[in-house]
Parts: sequence; structure tokens; C-alpha cells
Amino acid sequence: MSKPGEAGLRGLADYLASDMSACNRVIVERMQSSVALIPQLAAHLVAAGGKRLRPLLTLAAARLCGYDNQDGRMRHVEIAACVEFIHTATLLHDDVVDESQLRRGLASANAIFGNKASVLVGDFLFARSFQILTADASLDIMAILSAASATLAEGEVMQMTTQNDLSTSVDQYLQVIYGKTAALFAAACEAGAVIGESGPEQREALRLYGANLGMAFQLVDDALDYAADQAVLGKEVGDDFREGKVTLPVLAAYAAGDEADRTFWRRVIEESEQTPDDLPAALECIARTDAIAITLARAEDYAAKAREALVGFADCEIKTLLLDTARYSVSRER
Amino acid sequence: MSKPGEAGLRGLADYLASDMSACNRVIVERMQSSVALIPQLAAHLVAAGGKRLRPLLTLAAARLCGYDNQDGRMRHVEIAACVEFIHTATLLHDDVVDESQLRRGLASANAIFGNKASVLVGDFLFARSFQILTADASLDIMAILSAASATLAEGEVMQMTTQNDLSTSVDQYLQVIYGKTAALFAAACEAGAVIGESGPEQREALRLYGANLGMAFQLVDDALDYAADQAVLGKEVGDDFREGKVTLPVLAAYAAGDEADRTFWRRVIEESEQTPDDLPAALECIARTDAIAITLARAEDYAAKAREALVGFADCEIKTLLLDTARYSVSRER
Repeated sequence: MSKPGEAGLRGLADYLASDMSACNRVIVERMQSSVALIPQLAAHLVAAGGKRLRPLLTLAAARLCGYDNQDGRMRHVEIAACVEFIHTATLLHDDVVDESQLRRGLASANAIFGNKASVLVGDFLFARSFQILTADASLDIMAILSAASATLAEGEVMQMTTQNDLSTSVDQYLQVIYGKTAALFAAACEAGAVIGESGPEQREALRLYGANLGMAFQLVDDALDYAADQAVLGKEVGDDFREGKVTLPVLAAYAAGDEADRTFWRRVIEESEQTPDDLPAALECIARTDAIAITLARAEDYAAKAREALVGFADCEIKTLLLDTARYSVSRER
Repeated sequence: MSKPGEAGLRGLADYLASDMSACNRVIVERMQSSVALIPQLAAHLVAAGGKRLRPLLTLAAARLCGYDNQDGRMRHVEIAACVEFIHTATLLHDDVVDESQLRRGLASANAIFGNKASVLVGDFLFARSFQILTADASLDIMAILSAASATLAEGEVMQMTTQNDLSTSVDQYLQVIYGKTAALFAAACEAGAVIGESGPEQREALRLYGANLGMAFQLVDDALDYAADQAVLGKEVGDDFREGKVTLPVLAAYAAGDEADRTFWRRVIEESEQTPDDLPAALECIARTDAIAITLARAEDYAAKAREALVGFADCEIKTLLLDTARYSVSRER
């Protein structure tokens, strides 16, 4: 069984295989440094693979808007690599912040190389991404990606301040996942539209597509943290639970639960007092209150909005694949 | 008794007081965020003060090159704030990496707000600095500051890999301090020259001034970690020692020491086995081997080179103040 979203992504990755190979080459080239630990740590992340979803969105958006790299510059590939560097930098810092031991099913960089190296190599990749942007020389793309980077950091800080706090509203939760995930999805798509020299309407449409797709992906990810097994998810199931992260499955179960449920959630999330029996108890409560279904229904709404955003584009293979990516993001169909 | 360099800096800060006030206003404005913890933590750093040396260099270089802000944009102030954000972001991350409890004589941000917040607010300030650069719209300045940011991260990683390693060469140590300190000093000055629309020779002269001044400052800082009292230094004396940082005072004492000294240094730096008596013993060894004098002589050389770099500029008040800054950087004269 594949993770939701993978079938749609696979189609996109196959169609853009040549662009993605070029992007992977740029990623490896641009993470080089005379300080050996930097490419070593970065290579660990590349080897860990990952879906490369964000750079794929940049490549797809640029192609959808007609970019044919006749300028000989392969701008879409450079900017896609830049988007992946920003994402990788935040992953490195996230894992330090969350003290994660696993990332994409492998030991996380901080677990192998230590927190110091993870913080500093994250900084390096972030700086390097702005060197790539400077070389590309588009002020529009710089504005998009520097704003998304600031929003990303804000989302992470906000997530930190809502941790262990069951009075977090659903709106606040949505703001957190917009910042930590959807903003960079939106920026990745919008930057592709700028590369494709599209007009303001197409640019806005792709921004909306990315933003809504990002919301759907994060909601599904948060649902899976209470509903999937580790082999599928590539991270430790119950991570969010153990960290006291206040995600929609928890908020929904807390809202729909009885007094005993609420006492339970307050102890395990707000007081961070957890025993080994508590994760199964949390899963039972989440199942009984339909909290996963509630979360996935939200994800469906966002995925539908992502699809609607593309209505103005003429039909073509890449549009179909982007529509499929949104559709499959919330289902396990192949 | 003031810290070396303060007298020269004070002259520069007095002369540029109006520009510095404007810069401080931009710093406060641009650290605002709807996520309250960000301005809270950032305000702690602003309150802690600090010399604001790097933004001062940008302002001074721009003025030296004739920038008169007749464009109505106050570009020198914006870019100076941007330089300070990059510096502050690295301080936040440094303190996490070094687990420092003090910064500029006050509790460090990570000690008050935690490591998570320090990492994430550092990321926010870094992203915000690139938003400021994008708004300024000079590709030259973006290239200068994004490259300096990457070099900064490389310097920090290299410092990490030389930690606890007495086989570090003096050249490697100099490369570390170029990366962690001098590169941003150089960039701060060069960016000012670009704002002042100077020709390539003046731009290169200011870059050299900054680079050499930065080397002098870091060498003095490393000397003071074994030679000053906490009240003057604003950080814990012996920090570098306790962290096993391999700085020139240690390398010089190790090189000039006898076999007993070398056994001592290997135990305390390479094996990280330290007792409370070891810092006094280290200070005694450093004094006996003239390691501080050796370090300060190097700093003198760099300060002289910084002064020489300005030879092509016509005499004026700001040039005199920059020359003073270099001169006083290595002395305690007032």
C-alpha cells in the first residue's frame, strides 16, 4: 500500500524525469563546499531521497506555463533546486527542534552528525539557495521565496507556541500548517509560473493550487501520524503524539470526546505525562470520535480547491498530472 | 577599562548617530511578526545592545563613498539593518550550537527562550534579511551578502570540525575566523561601497578594510577569552577553553610548550577532561609562552593592513574614524 499522494506524484515525476535528473545534478553540484562535512551531511539527505515534491511543483508549473528553456539557462531546474534547499534547511532545523531520530525512514541527520552540524548545514543550504536566486536575477522570484522562507519560520515558531496547548483553535492550527507547509508549496508553484512568464492570473492560479495542495498534504500527514504504520510513513508513528503537537486529529478527538477523554488528552498533551499504554488509548479515542475522517474531509476540501484553481489552464498532459496529484493527495487509490 | 576597539567604534557611532538611530528603527520595524514570540525574542537581543559594529561599517562605507541618500530611500540604513539581521541570526544559532548561557553579559536567548525558539527566530531573521535585500533590488549587494552568509556557515562548520583538535594548523584557524567573522565584516563594508556607487577599486579597498578589520577583531576576541575579566568581555571568560575551541592562544601555547604542557593541553582540549583547576593552569601556560602577545601581534598585522587598504580615499572625518577603528581594535588606549 502506498502513501496517499504517491500515485499522482509518480506520474508527475515520470513525466518530468529528465528535468528532475537535471535538478538532482544541480542539487549535488551546489551543495559542494571546501568544508567536507557539508557535502557529507547533505549527501546523507540526498541519499535519504524523499519525494522531491516541491521542486517537482516548480518544474511542473514552469512547463505548464510554457517554459521551454530556449534561453539555454534551465532556470526552472535552478529554481527547483533552490526550493529543495530551502525545504532541506527547514527539515534539518526541524529535526533539531523536534529531536527526531528518524527522517524518511532513515536515521535523521542530527542523530548521525549531531545538532550542531544540522543547524549549521541548514544555514549553509539556506544561504546557498539565495546565491542561486541571486544568479537567476529575478526580483519577483526572490520576493516569492524570501517571503515564503519568513512565513515558514513563522509557522514553525507558531507551531512551537501551540504545542501542548489544547486551547489552540482549528483556525490557529490551519495557520500553522499554512506556514510550515503550504506557503512553500505555493511559492514553489508561483515561482514556476514566473519562470514560464505567465500573466498575473495564471501566476495567482498556480499559487492557489500550491497553497491548497500543501494544506491537503499536511492534513493527510497529520492524519497518518495516528493512522499509518511506520513502514509506510517513513517516520515514527505517534511522533506528533509524543511531542504533544496539537494537530487536527487531536483537536477533533478532544472536541468530540467525553469528560474522560478530555481528562486523558489534557494529561498526555498538556501535562506531557505519557505511559506506553497511552498511544493505543489515543488511537482508540481518535477512531471512536471519527477524528481521522474529520481531518481527511478537510484535506479533501483543500484538494478540491487545488483542482479548481487550475480551471483556467488549457487541457494538457501536465495539467492532468497536477490534477491527479491533488486528487491522489487524499486517497490511497492507484 | 574598555574593551579593545571600543574607543574607535564610539567615534564612528557618534559621527553616524543619526544614521544609527534610523537603522535601529528599521531593525525594530522589520523584526515585527504576527507571531508574538518572534519580536519578543528579537527585542531581547536589541535590548542586549551589542556594538552594532557591522551595520556601522555599512553606514560608514556608504558615507565614505559619497552616498547622500538624495534618492530618498535610505538604502544604507536598510542594508545596514539587513547585515545586523544576518549577524543576529548567526549569534542565535551559535549560542544554540555552543550551549552558551551568556551573550553580551546578559542571559542568552536560548537560555531564556529555549533552543527551539533560537533556531527558528534565527531562520526568520535570515529570511527577513533577504526580503530587505529583495526590496533594495541590487543584485550586486545580494551577491555579496548571500555569499558572505554561505561563507559564515562554512566557517562555523569548520570551527566545529577543528574543535578539540590540536593538530589544527594556524592557517586552518585563520580560515575559520575569516569565515565566522571577517567575511561578514568584508561584506558589510563592500555593500556600503556599492550603495555609494563607488568604482571597483574603492569597492575592493573597502572589502579589504573590512576583511582585515574582522580578522583583527576576532583575534583580539580570542585573546580576551584567556585574558579579560567577565565584566569587560560580556561573556564567560574561559568559554572557549571549556568548549575545547582551538584558537590561536591555545595553538601558540601548545606549540611553544614543553612536554608537560602538551600533555596538559591534550587532556583538557582533545580529551575534554577538565577540572576546576585547569583554567588557571591554562592561563599560566598561556602567559608563560607569550601566547597572548603572539595572538595580539597577528591582530596588529591585520589592523595595519586594514588601515593601508584605505590609502586611496581622500582624507575626511569618516576616513579618520575608520582608521581609528582599526587602530583601536587592537589596543586599550582611549
